[in-house]
Amino acid sequence: MFETLTVRTSKRAEMIDITDRIQDLVHGSDAADGCAICYVPHTTAGITIQENADPDVVHDILYKLEALVPHHDPNFRHGEGNSDAHIKASLMGSSVTVPFRGSAMVLGTWQAIYFCEFDGPRSRNLHVKLIKG
Amino acid sequence: MFETLTVRTSKRAEMIDITDRIQDLVHGSDAADGCAICYVPHTTAGITIQENADPDVVHDILYKLEALVPHHDPNFRHGEGNSDAHIKASLMGSSVTVPFRGSAMVLGTWQAIYFCEFDGPRSRNLHVKLIKG
Amino acid sequence: MFETLTVRTSKRAEMIDITDRIQDLVHGSDAADGCAICYVPHTTAGITIQENADPDVVHDILYKLEALVPHHDPNFRHGEGNSDAHIKASLMGSSVTVPFRGSAMVLGTWQAIYFCEFDGPRSRNLHVKLIKG
Repeated sequence: MFETLTVRTSKRAEMIDITDRIQDLVHGSDAADGCAICYVPHTTAGITIQENADPDVVHDILYKLEALVPHHDPNFRHGEGNSDAHIKASLMGSSVTVPFRGSAMVLGTWQAIYFCEFDGPRSRNLHVKLIKG
Repeated sequence: MFETLTVRTSKRAEMIDITDRIQDLVHGSDAADGCAICYVPHTTAGITIQENADPDVVHDILYKLEALVPHHDPNFRHGEGNSDAHIKASLMGSSVTVPFRGSAMVLGTWQAIYFCEFDGPRSRNLHVKLIKG
Repeated sequence: MFETLTVRTSKRAEMIDITDRIQDLVHGSDAADGCAICYVPHTTAGITIQENADPDVVHDILYKLEALVPHHDPNFRHGEGNSDAHIKASLMGSSVTVPFRGSAMVLGTWQAIYFCEFDGPRSRNLHVKLIKG
């Protein structure tokens, strides 16, 4: 199964919880067991798995990424002015892989899948591929 | 095949070599060829593949992660005081995927799979999913 | 399908676009749909997916990684003097997973797969495993 979701972002940097949308795809597929590969086809957005109980965790992650890789740096050469977003995307990574069993992802109690926007707001895509097994 | 291993950690930040335990699962399965997905269901622990020949490499990684993302930061809002651990976990990632052939993972000569504890000591879980193919 | 590619690097730190070589493997396989796992069996090299339209993006990533993790640090203990390369490799990660459909990887418009050398120049290997599904 292969599906493409649309993710609308509303800020330059933002982490959006997309867990339920991916779980719906897993639940609706004919595969009970396997792996879900969530793939971001962009170079200024990434994806990570993090806590969704306290929104301050997301705040602190975005704060620290900006502290480590500020938007503007006089040594950046890329003319679009978004090199920081490219770097943050590579630090988070372009995909996550989550096993599922009995049509449910084996996420930990506090885990959620976050689409990481670093150069929004934009309309983004997320590919979800399910591999049975 | 899906198995859950328990990993006991003994320090706040620690990298524990779990290669042999995963290789045992690969060896004991009926799949000769495929991929092993090693998945951490926690938000303050991660997983990475690194050198196990010289323990100073692990020291230097943990030292540098702490230098980049110190435990305490006056701008962190998360009340549990472990925002650094969440950030380090996302920087390392929540899973690694390692191909195997003839029931052996194709790790490089110096490579080992490390469970990365950033907010221990705790008892942790690690899910291992094998996909044939 | 499992193949090993050789990647020759010419600098200490370098990102080499290997997209076409992986796409050729996908195209030449008997699997129309599935996932390509690109795995680096080294501990001082990594892999990431980034923009290949403007080479300044690669420049800025390598610049910033070196700014965050300089080659020399008086607190590093590892005797080989390449701890920075180990850390950069773990920050980028040891593998990427890319879905493919109709024998083509679903890369975004600006995406390319980059082998990330952090302690070259060397001759390196890259394992490519295709999982059908």
